Amino acid sequence: MYSKEELSTVIEEYVHALPFPEEPDSLYAPIAYSLERGGKRLRPLLAMMACNIFSDDVERALPCAAAVEVFHNFTLLHDDIMDNAAVRRGKPAVHRKWGANSAILSGDAMMIYSYRLLERVDPVLLPELFPIFNDTSLKVCEGQQYDMDFESLERVPMDDYLLMISLKTAVLLAGATVMGAICGGASREDCERLHTFAMELGMAFQIRDDILDSYGTQASLGKKIGGDIIEGKKTFLTTDAMEVADEDTRRRLAGLMHNREMIPDEKVTRVLAIYDALGVRERAEAAVTRYTDRATAALAGLSVPAARREPMERLALELTSRWS
Amino acid sequence: MYSKEELSTVIEEYVHALPFPEEPDSLYAPIAYSLERGGKRLRPLLAMMACNIFSDDVERALPCAAAVEVFHNFTLLHDDIMDNAAVRRGKPAVHRKWGANSAILSGDAMMIYSYRLLERVDPVLLPELFPIFNDTSLKVCEGQQYDMDFESLERVPMDDYLLMISLKTAVLLAGATVMGAICGGASREDCERLHTFAMELGMAFQIRDDILDSYGTQASLGKKIGGDIIEGKKTFLTTDAMEVADEDTRRRLAGLMHNREMIPDEKVTRVLAIYDALGVRERAEAAVTRYTDRATAALAGLSVPAARREPMERLALELTSRWS
Repeated sequence: MYSKEELSTVIEEYVHALPFPEEPDSLYAPIAYSLERGGKRLRPLLAMMACNIFSDDVERALPCAAAVEVFHNFTLLHDDIMDNAAVRRGKPAVHRKWGANSAILSGDAMMIYSYRLLERVDPVLLPELFPIFNDTSLKVCEGQQYDMDFESLERVPMDDYLLMISLKTAVLLAGATVMGAICGGASREDCERLHTFAMELGMAFQIRDDILDSYGTQASLGKKIGGDIIEGKKTFLTTDAMEVADEDTRRRLAGLMHNREMIPDEKVTRVLAIYDALGVRERAEAAVTRYTDRATAALAGLSVPAARREPMERLALELTSRWS
Repeated sequence: MYSKEELSTVIEEYVHALPFPEEPDSLYAPIAYSLERGGKRLRPLLAMMACNIFSDDVERALPCAAAVEVFHNFTLLHDDIMDNAAVRRGKPAVHRKWGANSAILSGDAMMIYSYRLLERVDPVLLPELFPIFNDTSLKVCEGQQYDMDFESLERVPMDDYLLMISLKTAVLLAGATVMGAICGGASREDCERLHTFAMELGMAFQIRDDILDSYGTQASLGKKIGGDIIEGKKTFLTTDAMEVADEDTRRRLAGLMHNREMIPDEKVTRVLAIYDALGVRERAEAAVTRYTDRATAALAGLSVPAARREPMERLALELTSRWS
């Protein structure tokens, strides 16, 4: 089996060697820029590791891994336009560097390019992989739509919030994992177990993300703490707080979240004080643990020797207890 | 064989019966709205007619026909954001009705949905059809990029203009036609002939479109004449005029095209006077005839009885001599 580091190297080399047409440069330069900025490469890693559980010929999963990574970066490109985000991974967002129109069109081309990568899969597997990729991609759009719809609501029920992150985040992790497993020759039952594993992992991963944004450190995260609070973004933390708070606290929290005048650090301090009083962080950590436990339980059900699932289990634990 | 009207009915019924998820309504309502507004349905018609040349089982081509139609409508949706167009087919453009963010995201979902429709093709044909669909789609984006890049240029060489419309318009007509032919069981040679046919037809179709925008009648077109001139859009007519005009006329024409202050009707009258003096319309008509002749010549080369190519030939002549 391959180590996480070995697989990461293979992915990075494959992504960097992707051929793009030379012309029109104005269409393809933003795509290359988006892909070279790195990031965790988590989705392709899941695809490769899932394949590796069943086969040592991990190269078979590379097209799916790359397709999912390109698709993910396309969603970030378009999300940044919709959120009017200025920065992505420490560099100007595409729409700030090239303008909104370029970002829309390069994003479109990038999504098509993710499908071009799927052409490289074993043709025998294409009829099975193609619907999974489509279903996954469409659900990611549904998740982003719910996220936008929620912006105008003062309060989102927890179930709705969980549905939104399952679509926006977990579904793509699950799609990557299952496609990788199929490339590795997994049985239908094992694919279902891995689907459950990655969905649960995705939930834990996203809630962990929400926790880190408020409770991480700038040094380890590489970005300012409290960004979600400053932007008034709906997270597991806000959703939980609104559920458990009394009427008065709820009104205070909603007022703070919508306040665009207050000095950002002041806003963060006040919101965190409310979270602390309500025990929000503890419940968020408990949710991460709960989802992580369900994920590892699903993984334990795979019909493979324990040694073969061990790297994937390690990755899951790393991701859900991470500080960056 | 089926008549154009019969095939149009089949297409319309298929498109109207497309299943969309109910939720989130904010994502899917703009997609349904885009598709219900009709239009020529030219691309699916080409797919169905191409299939029908080789087979009477035209249903086989329906998924490709619908996929291309949905893709085409997705491009219109995103193009309207980029061009800031207020109206599409007599109704408010999606981004004006739901906002730019909704239009971006619903467009993304619509493109993925076009791929979902491809899932319905015969799985044996998928590995052949999928790359054609991807290649076509990516080239359409390249065409739109050139179109945007040309906006800031005072003058575009004719070859560049022709490359742009071949990518933005002809390639999708050719993709639809070839995919339909493959579904009908056409040989590789016949697919190549139909590719040539549809590329040439696409060029003739687009130049005809450019002519109609300046020389049609409001009654038959259903929209104001001279829209391209008023917006200062690059067309075959402007490109040709800039090529043949002397330095003085060229400067006058460029000044008119960029003039946003002038009363629109006045601007149209003045630009048309320059076209008339330069013989622009005659050269545009000659170009349509030249491309149409090449298209029908390619069609005549098909290895089928003349009767089977006759409906497609009639369609080509209708499209390239149309007044609406």
